[in-house]
Amino acid sequence: MADIITVRDPHDPRLSDFTGLTDVELRRRREPAEGLFIAEGEKVIRRAARAGYPTRAMLLSEKWLPAMRDVIDASGAPAYVMPPELAEQVTGYHVHRGALASMGRTPLPEPEALLAAARRVVIMEAVNDHTNIGAIFRSAAALGMDGVLLSPSCADPLYRRSVKVSMGAVFSVPYARLTTWPHGLAAVREAGFRVLALTPEESALPLEAAGPHRLPRVALLLGAEGDGLSERAMREADARVRIPMAHGVDSLNVGAAAAVAFYAATRA
Amino acid sequence: MADIITVRDPHDPRLSDFTGLTDVELRRRREPAEGLFIAEGEKVIRRAARAGYPTRAMLLSEKWLPAMRDVIDASGAPAYVMPPELAEQVTGYHVHRGALASMGRTPLPEPEALLAAARRVVIMEAVNDHTNIGAIFRSAAALGMDGVLLSPSCADPLYRRSVKVSMGAVFSVPYARLTTWPHGLAAVREAGFRVLALTPEESALPLEAAGPHRLPRVALLLGAEGDGLSERAMREADARVRIPMAHGVDSLNVGAAAAVAFYAATRA
Ligand SMILES: C[S@@+](CC[C@H](N)C(=O)[O-])C[C@H]1O[C@@H](n2cnc3c(N)ncnc32)[C@H](O)[C@@H]1O
Ligand SMILES: C[S@@+](CC[C@H](N)C(=O)[O-])C[C@H]1O[C@@H](n2cnc3c(N)ncnc32)[C@H](O)[C@@H]1O
Repeated sequence: MADIITVRDPHDPRLSDFTGLTDVELRRRREPAEGLFIAEGEKVIRRAARAGYPTRAMLLSEKWLPAMRDVIDASGAPAYVMPPELAEQVTGYHVHRGALASMGRTPLPEPEALLAAARRVVIMEAVNDHTNIGAIFRSAAALGMDGVLLSPSCADPLYRRSVKVSMGAVFSVPYARLTTWPHGLAAVREAGFRVLALTPEESALPLEAAGPHRLPRVALLLGAEGDGLSERAMREADARVRIPMAHGVDSLNVGAAAAVAFYAATRA
Repeated sequence: MADIITVRDPHDPRLSDFTGLTDVELRRRREPAEGLFIAEGEKVIRRAARAGYPTRAMLLSEKWLPAMRDVIDASGAPAYVMPPELAEQVTGYHVHRGALASMGRTPLPEPEALLAAARRVVIMEAVNDHTNIGAIFRSAAALGMDGVLLSPSCADPLYRRSVKVSMGAVFSVPYARLTTWPHGLAAVREAGFRVLALTPEESALPLEAAGPHRLPRVALLLGAEGDGLSERAMREADARVRIPMAHGVDSLNVGAAAAVAFYAATRA
């Protein structure tokens, strides 16, 4: 049984995990440093708990108590109950989804361990838009990719917006961070993966011709919205692969390119 | 040569096309009713002008005059120049991209005319998220779809956010609105298209097996984020088709599903 505590002061120090949630820069620094992340809404909180993340605290309105009762009890963490207007003073916004949980981060797997168990992985270079990260995780889960590797400068998949856009897929698709870049890609090749750099460049091989679904192990390397993949990273790949573009269009959004590439790499 | 007019009063009635841009509900009503839309930033404004939309007026800061000079002159429309702080009082937000243009809408083609010239089209039912609409247009252009049909309740592709997310593809991919729904789909079938309803339902045919790239004319029917396609609309389709889902995931985001389906339908 967990404690259910009614709180009336938005400055109560026990609520500190939940303060200033709309300040992206602040939270981006605080959350990894303090080893926490925020899950928002019943579905996402349940998924995070099921995936084994420990709950530190919950913040919710009275109305949500019945629906969340079993989650609260199973978590053993304190649940702070506040009217929505007061909660808004803590978080900085109106929490439409009624309940927030702060969860503890758990250690990420080593890239080698992740690769040993995988056949299809995606690698992102410097993707620092939380929406794109979330969208790529959702598609990766839906289309049966086995894992995600992040370059050192990719944004945090556990940031609130990524979690939400991913529909909780950040909890189910294993991911790891490469610590050296782009040299960390050598370890991917050594683990038996063919690394395909996804780029709209004309000189790249059409995706269909590359036949990623026929490869025993394949890693799909994706770049960020503005700059695309760095030349250095592409040089560490085994091949450059493009999705042919029509009407002189430059490129697909990275989330759309990811969905196409995952589909091509996983279809039977 | 167009008039370049320095304005100091944010309440100047000549700026009325640009007022209250952050009020989504207001603009959603006003823009179609008044026959205008807003293009934001140099690239998008150029694309809209090139696509033949007439410029009604421009609003920009001094700094952007040199870069936009040729566009202003070619448009023949008045260009109102204001410091960014004042422009913000008109629009309601800080215009990062420096220049705004209000453009006149032009009549949409009839669905029959669009279909006569097309082999691959996408049809959206009740997609009312501007980001999803924009993303689907971008992918449609990039992957070589010939046109878009919208159900009566789909959101406006010319709304500022859709235009931006589409990277201007809303100007290059022809689109039309079906006026009766779902019966308007009969006209699509009569024009020789096989209508494939995209749905995650288990009982649907896998996309690969449906072989959309082998069909002479194909229409891909997509539903909205929460509800998906209505049963009524699916009944008007020739077949139900699914992108196989892994790990018990419910569905892809509609933008990701669109990209996969467009790729499958257009590859050589
Ligand atoms: C918006 S694109 C970047 C565009 C950038 N100007 C470039 O040339 O790479 C973001 C990422 O999506 C992927 N991408 C987009 N369009 C692609 C295409 N047609 N073929 C392969 N990958 C693509 C690539 O991984 C790219 O780095
Ligand atoms: C998020 S989904 C809607 C989910 C909704 N619960 C349903 O069952 O349709 C939005 C749209 O994307 C398309 N979509 C998503 N996943 C799909 C899949 N696996 N196969 C085919 N279409 C899919 C469909 O057109 C769907 O209407």
